Amino acid sequence: MTELVDRPAGNRRRPTTVAAAASGAASAQPAVDVDALGEQLLGKWAAVRLQARNLAASPELHKIEGLTHTEHRARVFGQLQYLVENEAVHRAFPESLGGSDDHGGNIAGFEELVVADPSLQIKAGVQWGLFGSAVMHLGTAEHHARWLPGIMNLEIPGCFAMTETGHGSDVASIATTATYDPSTDEFVVHTPFRAAWKDYIGNAATDGLGAVVFAQLVTRGVNHGVHAFYVDLRDPATKEFLPGIGGEDDGVKGGLNGIDNGRLHFTNVRIPRTNLLNRYGDVDADGRYSSPIASPGRRFFTMLGTLVQGRVSLDGAAVAASKVALKAAIQYATERRQFNASSHTEEEVLLDYQRHQKRLFTRLATTYAASFAHEQLLEKFDDVFSGAHDTDEDRQDLETLAAALKPLSTWHALDTLQECREACGGAGFLIENRFASLRADLDVYATFEGDNTVLLQLVAKRLLADYAKEFRSVDFGVLARYVVGQATGAAIHRTGLRQVAQFVADTGSVQKAAIALRDEESQRALLTDRVQTMVAEAATALKGTGRLSQEKGAALFNRHQNELIDAAQAHAELLQWEAFTDALRAVTDPGTKQVLTWLRDLFGLSLIEKNLSWYLMNGRLSMQRGRTVGEYINRLLVKLRPHAVDLVDAFGYGEQHVRATIATGAEKKRQDEARAYFRSQRANGQAPVDEKVLIARTVAGKRN
Amino acid sequence: MTELVDRPAGNRRRPTTVAAAASGAASAQPAVDVDALGEQLLGKWAAVRLQARNLAASPELHKIEGLTHTEHRARVFGQLQYLVENEAVHRAFPESLGGSDDHGGNIAGFEELVVADPSLQIKAGVQWGLFGSAVMHLGTAEHHARWLPGIMNLEIPGCFAMTETGHGSDVASIATTATYDPSTDEFVVHTPFRAAWKDYIGNAATDGLGAVVFAQLVTRGVNHGVHAFYVDLRDPATKEFLPGIGGEDDGVKGGLNGIDNGRLHFTNVRIPRTNLLNRYGDVDADGRYSSPIASPGRRFFTMLGTLVQGRVSLDGAAVAASKVALKAAIQYATERRQFNASSHTEEEVLLDYQRHQKRLFTRLATTYAASFAHEQLLEKFDDVFSGAHDTDEDRQDLETLAAALKPLSTWHALDTLQECREACGGAGFLIENRFASLRADLDVYATFEGDNTVLLQLVAKRLLADYAKEFRSVDFGVLARYVVGQATGAAIHRTGLRQVAQFVADTGSVQKAAIALRDEESQRALLTDRVQTMVAEAATALKGTGRLSQEKGAALFNRHQNELIDAAQAHAELLQWEAFTDALRAVTDPGTKQVLTWLRDLFGLSLIEKNLSWYLMNGRLSMQRGRTVGEYINRLLVKLRPHAVDLVDAFGYGEQHVRATIATGAEKKRQDEARAYFRSQRANGQAPVDEKVLIARTVAGKRN
Repeated sequence: MTELVDRPAGNRRRPTTVAAAASGAASAQPAVDVDALGEQLLGKWAAVRLQARNLAASPELHKIEGLTHTEHRARVFGQLQYLVENEAVHRAFPESLGGSDDHGGNIAGFEELVVADPSLQIKAGVQWGLFGSAVMHLGTAEHHARWLPGIMNLEIPGCFAMTETGHGSDVASIATTATYDPSTDEFVVHTPFRAAWKDYIGNAATDGLGAVVFAQLVTRGVNHGVHAFYVDLRDPATKEFLPGIGGEDDGVKGGLNGIDNGRLHFTNVRIPRTNLLNRYGDVDADGRYSSPIASPGRRFFTMLGTLVQGRVSLDGAAVAASKVALKAAIQYATERRQFNASSHTEEEVLLDYQRHQKRLFTRLATTYAASFAHEQLLEKFDDVFSGAHDTDEDRQDLETLAAALKPLSTWHALDTLQECREACGGAGFLIENRFASLRADLDVYATFEGDNTVLLQLVAKRLLADYAKEFRSVDFGVLARYVVGQATGAAIHRTGLRQVAQFVADTGSVQKAAIALRDEESQRALLTDRVQTMVAEAATALKGTGRLSQEKGAALFNRHQNELIDAAQAHAELLQWEAFTDALRAVTDPGTKQVLTWLRDLFGLSLIEKNLSWYLMNGRLSMQRGRTVGEYINRLLVKLRPHAVDLVDAFGYGEQHVRATIATGAEKKRQDEARAYFRSQRANGQAPVDEKVLIARTVAGKRN
Repeated sequence: MTELVDRPAGNRRRPTTVAAAASGAASAQPAVDVDALGEQLLGKWAAVRLQARNLAASPELHKIEGLTHTEHRARVFGQLQYLVENEAVHRAFPESLGGSDDHGGNIAGFEELVVADPSLQIKAGVQWGLFGSAVMHLGTAEHHARWLPGIMNLEIPGCFAMTETGHGSDVASIATTATYDPSTDEFVVHTPFRAAWKDYIGNAATDGLGAVVFAQLVTRGVNHGVHAFYVDLRDPATKEFLPGIGGEDDGVKGGLNGIDNGRLHFTNVRIPRTNLLNRYGDVDADGRYSSPIASPGRRFFTMLGTLVQGRVSLDGAAVAASKVALKAAIQYATERRQFNASSHTEEEVLLDYQRHQKRLFTRLATTYAASFAHEQLLEKFDDVFSGAHDTDEDRQDLETLAAALKPLSTWHALDTLQECREACGGAGFLIENRFASLRADLDVYATFEGDNTVLLQLVAKRLLADYAKEFRSVDFGVLARYVVGQATGAAIHRTGLRQVAQFVADTGSVQKAAIALRDEESQRALLTDRVQTMVAEAATALKGTGRLSQEKGAALFNRHQNELIDAAQAHAELLQWEAFTDALRAVTDPGTKQVLTWLRDLFGLSLIEKNLSWYLMNGRLSMQRGRTVGEYINRLLVKLRPHAVDLVDAFGYGEQHVRATIATGAEKKRQDEARAYFRSQRANGQAPVDEKVLIARTVAGKRN
């Protein structure tokens, strides 16, 4: 089944540009410049990333499998101290307190910790990314001075107590209250019933001494909505809960068992008025509420918006985990052999099977797309948080972008980890090969820091709003079909969203463009057109919702929920495709550019194949054209085969990051040993004759 | 968003037939007869199943979460003894030895153990289903008398040592040898290199005293292929390996950590000649080989075929786990509320969201299909193993059926467990709610006892062979398109496969039939046509492979591997659909029949939707018709909504099987408590005024 001119089979080919084979141009293979591609993948915060990977390679930070959750918790808590000592976690904090005001770099460094142990990444995220960030972004100077030093150096391990047993996605409806009592100048924090208990809170079960507690701020009989309050939880000496506070341990979880998640409840717990983190809303001694943001809705979203970095870092960590898994599975697939269909003596390498290529290369392509998209998200995040571009619209764009990308990358990571685990068979199931361990730990990434389905619905609402803004004055019927312009300059990291509809045109141009599916503009046109048409159709279907009763409006919206979520997903996929295409433009080495273009095409065509019925039903692709999609994908798999190892090597993860026995070359060694044994047996005539051969000989003998 | 006339919301409605609502026929809702449906689902071996479920409800057998793998292993080993004492595991063994020669019942009982602890199910499967079965089916009377009593009563915990580090799917190529030495009347068992070590073997790391070892039988310089040998592994007193034998512990795994998987190696280990399990091949004292099956290929497949029950029982266990997960997630979704889009005070129940319905009901439909298909597989299995229908063809049909259904049901279980876990948010991730635990344990079901992808490829080869047989004398071009007849009587449990092509016709009839997608015959025609066309196309593409060189033939086959596996999957889905449809015919209660028909339609239409592009590209559905598929699915979701709880209650699993805190009604209690609190607050005027309301009032005041 060999069709490949050149099959490096796991060797890392250094020289760049086109490998001019002696046999002439026809068999010339492009080559990937692994180092240059690796550098591009590291992105803007390459130095921080390398530093963090260096740290993540330390055995002290590695997950030890098979520990009890109690042992694992203790180990991870110790590792947090190691991070402090190695100055790995203070980048986002103010320079005045020893940080470096580096927001993008901070996330880049954080997310790399996932390869050491996802529990470490998330526990560090709880302490500095959530608890510390809330004090920093929602509090003011006095709060910073008072608590940030202890938070930064881990003297105050703390909780981010927002989610309740009763409310996760719908934060605005949490039931914990903080009622101001002017007689004592205190807030009274209270969880009035079981559903109001804070739940799934990291650091709550054992380690947390303090907490930022989110509660409905009530003063003078008015509920001003959700605000954040600093609350001391435990006595630092005894580690016992302070009076009025209690809790439960969430116990063993499906993964991330190095984190002590738990529940907290408050029974009329009194805290000083000044413990209100008052950047966006304050109460004076008399109980008068004031806020720089008049609209309670906007105020709420502004406060929550400061916490977007959780989603950004999950997006990056999910990409990192996907890379590690593919590195291991693809390397193994170039060594592992099974079945000898094409020869009597030589078995096939797994990666030469078409199905194996499809399973791994389509996910490799998506991983590249997600990686480049994440880099754009990170730049957008840094733009906003550094203050470089920090308008309301920038923040909204950032949130929508994070809400679009995080669901795709986290689901993709779970899918990739599982596919890699299955592609490695029984060996993939051994915890020493890490797929199952990483998958278990990353499972919850799909629902925490914003449930993926709920996030996609938020994106859909934003798309509808943009659509309405764009076409406020135009008749809906006319606009139900239109295509995008050639606005390639509208990079997503500046606009947050691809602009909806550059101009209106008939569908003809799309059909024409689709003649050559491998063409970049055709892919763009098809992917963009689908998003826009879906949004337009949903908008048309929902037209007039505002004039219905609340109940009927909600029912109408609900009848289109599936379509809306599908549209949001299509939009997010387009963003990934655009990011991949942007990145291609930055590649200078022609060999790398050729191979990455194939990979980008594989990504684009896989999206089109997945939604082929839509393109056919909506007349965007002819039936004949549709049939070529799968064929072209199969051809791309063959083209990519010789470059698979280069493409995973470019991720830049070493053995201390991958740490999978399966990816150490052990399989190749075993295969070589076995083949040498059989060769030597054949050579010295010791090999037993196969009964089948004997039968064939006998039959032949009778015939003669 | 309420559109439902009647929403039982978690109540189990007893009375059967149509619930004639007082308001008239228009609003009459069919009702499910939960008990009758439950009985139908229990199937032919209902009594055994109930007995096994009763056992599985015992706390002694339940998985304790958070144990180390060492503790878990010890616990599960103890549980095996409990199974022996409770006479749960001897049904398949001969009556003469205290069994009951009941093969179907044995599997039915085994697979229910998964709800207690999958490790227990699989460890019992290793001991009695693999190790014991191999002695029983591959050995002869002397072997039975010598070893079965000890295997049955667990005096001899043992291994099924087939898979090697180097060969899993390709068993024929294992490298362990058993070479006959006539000078001592012994076989010499030997693993010549590291890849030949037995690996992933249950009971190998600590518990196994004996093993059935698969090795290439070599005598008089001829290799007669893979045979099974009984080998003592450890000294029963010291538990130390016997001379020449060594091993390693596979360590912690992604799941099933109650089983001590490990590696075994043999260095010229001598065993008596009579330890060859000699039912299908024997060696006399002089080293002369004999076998009742002349063809080495047929002999190999016959020996391996006796082990099909592993696949059968995984199919059933995967269905059982899916049922338990859906029971928990659907019950929770009728209690859990989030967001109040349709009212100021009342939040929506999750199961009223369209997306939530789609996520859970499509999987509920597939679970029903897989459950009915499994029952047919079990009956086919019993037919063969009881000797009632035990021809070569019956065995081949059974193997193909198992190879078709096991991949679908095990992947479905993983998908369902994950979707249920995500549908329950953070609570779903807590191990106390079991989704994550079951998912981790069932992960390996996708690759052991036959890798799913490899199994589907086997099915594809069988389909190609059947196709070739059917049309040996007919021109291929003419047959590239044809449709199936109305052979509804050809139940799969008798033929193993739906017969390929009853008669040839043009595609017109399919298109006509598709006018009403909800029509049973239309669904059948569409699903069947797709399988047959795909097989015909693949056959055409592969025509003449036999005349190519081995290498070129393999390359051609490989270029169509994706299509072949897709065809096999389509075939397996059709089998599930037919099984569901067969089961519908057995329903007498009209209400149940109506609801189950909707569910079957949801299954059928979901399959058609998944492959819609194929139907469009191949002219089987018009673009207009294609668009109605999604719409009709959405309508079915609404119709099924009031019956969801009944449909999961009919699975018959009680709290001691589900054991998920989330499904105990705790959520409803919390919701009720919270709503009562807010109601009382509103009633006595204690509720703070919402700032938004205040602003609205102020604005209104200024206007007046």
